[in-house]
Amino acid sequence: MTAPVLTLTVDTGAVRYPIHIGRGLLGDRARLEAALPAGPLLLVSNVTIAPLYAARLKAALAPRALPECLLPDGESFKTLATLASIYDRLAAERVHRDGAILALGGGVVGDVAGFAAATWQRGIACVQLPTTLLAQVDSSIGGKTAVNHPAGKNLIGAFHQPRAVLADLDTLATLPERELRSGLAEIIKCALVRDLGFLGWLERSMGALVAREPAALAEAIRRACEIKAAIVAADEREHGARALLNFGHTFAHAIEAAEGYGSWLHGEAVAAGMVLATETSARLGWVDGAALERVRSLIERAGLPLKPPRIGAARARELMSLDKKVQGGRIRLVLLKALGEGVVSGDYDPAALEAVLRAELA
Amino acid sequence: MTAPVLTLTVDTGAVRYPIHIGRGLLGDRARLEAALPAGPLLLVSNVTIAPLYAARLKAALAPRALPECLLPDGESFKTLATLASIYDRLAAERVHRDGAILALGGGVVGDVAGFAAATWQRGIACVQLPTTLLAQVDSSIGGKTAVNHPAGKNLIGAFHQPRAVLADLDTLATLPERELRSGLAEIIKCALVRDLGFLGWLERSMGALVAREPAALAEAIRRACEIKAAIVAADEREHGARALLNFGHTFAHAIEAAEGYGSWLHGEAVAAGMVLATETSARLGWVDGAALERVRSLIERAGLPLKPPRIGAARARELMSLDKKVQGGRIRLVLLKALGEGVVSGDYDPAALEAVLRAELA
Repeated sequence: MTAPVLTLTVDTGAVRYPIHIGRGLLGDRARLEAALPAGPLLLVSNVTIAPLYAARLKAALAPRALPECLLPDGESFKTLATLASIYDRLAAERVHRDGAILALGGGVVGDVAGFAAATWQRGIACVQLPTTLLAQVDSSIGGKTAVNHPAGKNLIGAFHQPRAVLADLDTLATLPERELRSGLAEIIKCALVRDLGFLGWLERSMGALVAREPAALAEAIRRACEIKAAIVAADEREHGARALLNFGHTFAHAIEAAEGYGSWLHGEAVAAGMVLATETSARLGWVDGAALERVRSLIERAGLPLKPPRIGAARARELMSLDKKVQGGRIRLVLLKALGEGVVSGDYDPAALEAVLRAELA
Repeated sequence: MTAPVLTLTVDTGAVRYPIHIGRGLLGDRARLEAALPAGPLLLVSNVTIAPLYAARLKAALAPRALPECLLPDGESFKTLATLASIYDRLAAERVHRDGAILALGGGVVGDVAGFAAATWQRGIACVQLPTTLLAQVDSSIGGKTAVNHPAGKNLIGAFHQPRAVLADLDTLATLPERELRSGLAEIIKCALVRDLGFLGWLERSMGALVAREPAALAEAIRRACEIKAAIVAADEREHGARALLNFGHTFAHAIEAAEGYGSWLHGEAVAAGMVLATETSARLGWVDGAALERVRSLIERAGLPLKPPRIGAARARELMSLDKKVQGGRIRLVLLKALGEGVVSGDYDPAALEAVLRAELA
């Protein structure tokens, strides 16, 4: 018996592609082949994930060859040097414009493999095979690809939509606890900026999600993907609404940069960042104390941190000033007008942000 | 008295931008400011060009700051390492999405600076200020950006249209002889694939062009830019007609890779490549001996090489198989159906290509 596979479509106007969510997708020959062009393939994964899942992918695609390019595991390897190693394999395997990269892994693999696909021969096909909850609901969708620069996360990158995303729920069974919770942070984010009803569902279902009940996870992934797909469809290049998806992220990027990439998981930093953003919104009088308490409580029940590390207000401000949303020297933030209603704004009283930075980070 | 400035418009559907052709443009505050966003700027140039022209650019933009990132001069520096040095300066100068790169120099500077702009923070503005004839008629227009990989030229890159191109004719006065002739190769290419009338004009005007008569150069640049702009407008991403602009280039890239980037100038390799492509077309019976003779004669009068270096047929075939136009293992070539009528084809008798490779390269 095969469990049903749910398929959403992302439509940016310029391109359309499917997101499949279900079990057994890494062994699903038909859906894989439907997404792949005829030319040479390269599997990009890492040394932790490939031993778990590469074999079933190769069996599904046989007799097509699927050479592997395995990266070291971790955010600290999301670099130009790692990217260069992928280019070398693409050249060695003679992958041309009619070829494709399959990106098997979490957000780091997806981002760097996606950026390699975006820039190899000015763009080849990429199929995203996310194996973490965070990648399934967030990084694999929407075409943002990147590597880090010493000055900040994701400062080097491109927009390059995948040909398809196959989110295989089977991979979540073995996901480490911290990584599962990190993925929940991005799901909570979707609800907070866009969908009050989903927020209520998450409050009712958080116990089931933390317990990894498959039906609850599938529903959470579906709703988060729908929200993300709708926002990306409206604004592929992040000129407007798409920046909503960065709720908590300007703070999170500062936390990650200050602590060294990888010591805080991305979702953990986003969780603390969402609390900071909600606190800023509360100081501005945009949301009340009860709303702030709902946000804190849900994040706490997901097992995520409420407090950022004490990196210092000045250091936080400096790192936040590198954010890609900075315009005219002003740090634009995603704030909450209400629960379920995010807003991108550079037009807020900077004293509110300053007070939060001093209270929480100094 | 100011000489007239001619302005063409490139319109890809997604974006529109002007190409200005004329004298004094590097000091033209109004046209520069019209193309630039409000944020921080970075001038990317090289150690040869910047001493000649950076001062007039800075004077035109004053009091806006224009920090410089100077690259070593030469094709051998069109690398990921050079790209990384630009990223470092962009970070140090706090260039965000509201900033811009000004690319002042020849094709190497334009390609690598353009690729930095394409990928810094997933894309910032770029203004191209080409200072060689080749860059003015070819590489600065159309949004192709790239760096080289040891396995081949321009294998790493992106499509990223500039905000504007300002081709200052004054820069041609000091251009070394070989570089001027190299630019003439790309102009001849435009005529051969698309415009028999322009080919006749070039045959009549080659003496004036080689003598650098300003009116002749301006007219040649205008017509070449018009041809290129029309092709790019029809096919920004090189799915079809745009590949016509690669006439001679599949051979040329093999020559440049075999000889080491830089020992043959790009236009010199393109000239020899155009002869090889025309010879292949002649062996296929698509053009006659008289047409081949016209091509040879024009290239010779431009002072460009008719013969490729003897890199060996096998080596040439191997290097050509890395070309981005390869599909299904077949080397697609730009060939001539007639003078002024190029065609992109994988559907030709491979024996004709083989015979040319053996005769000319073995």
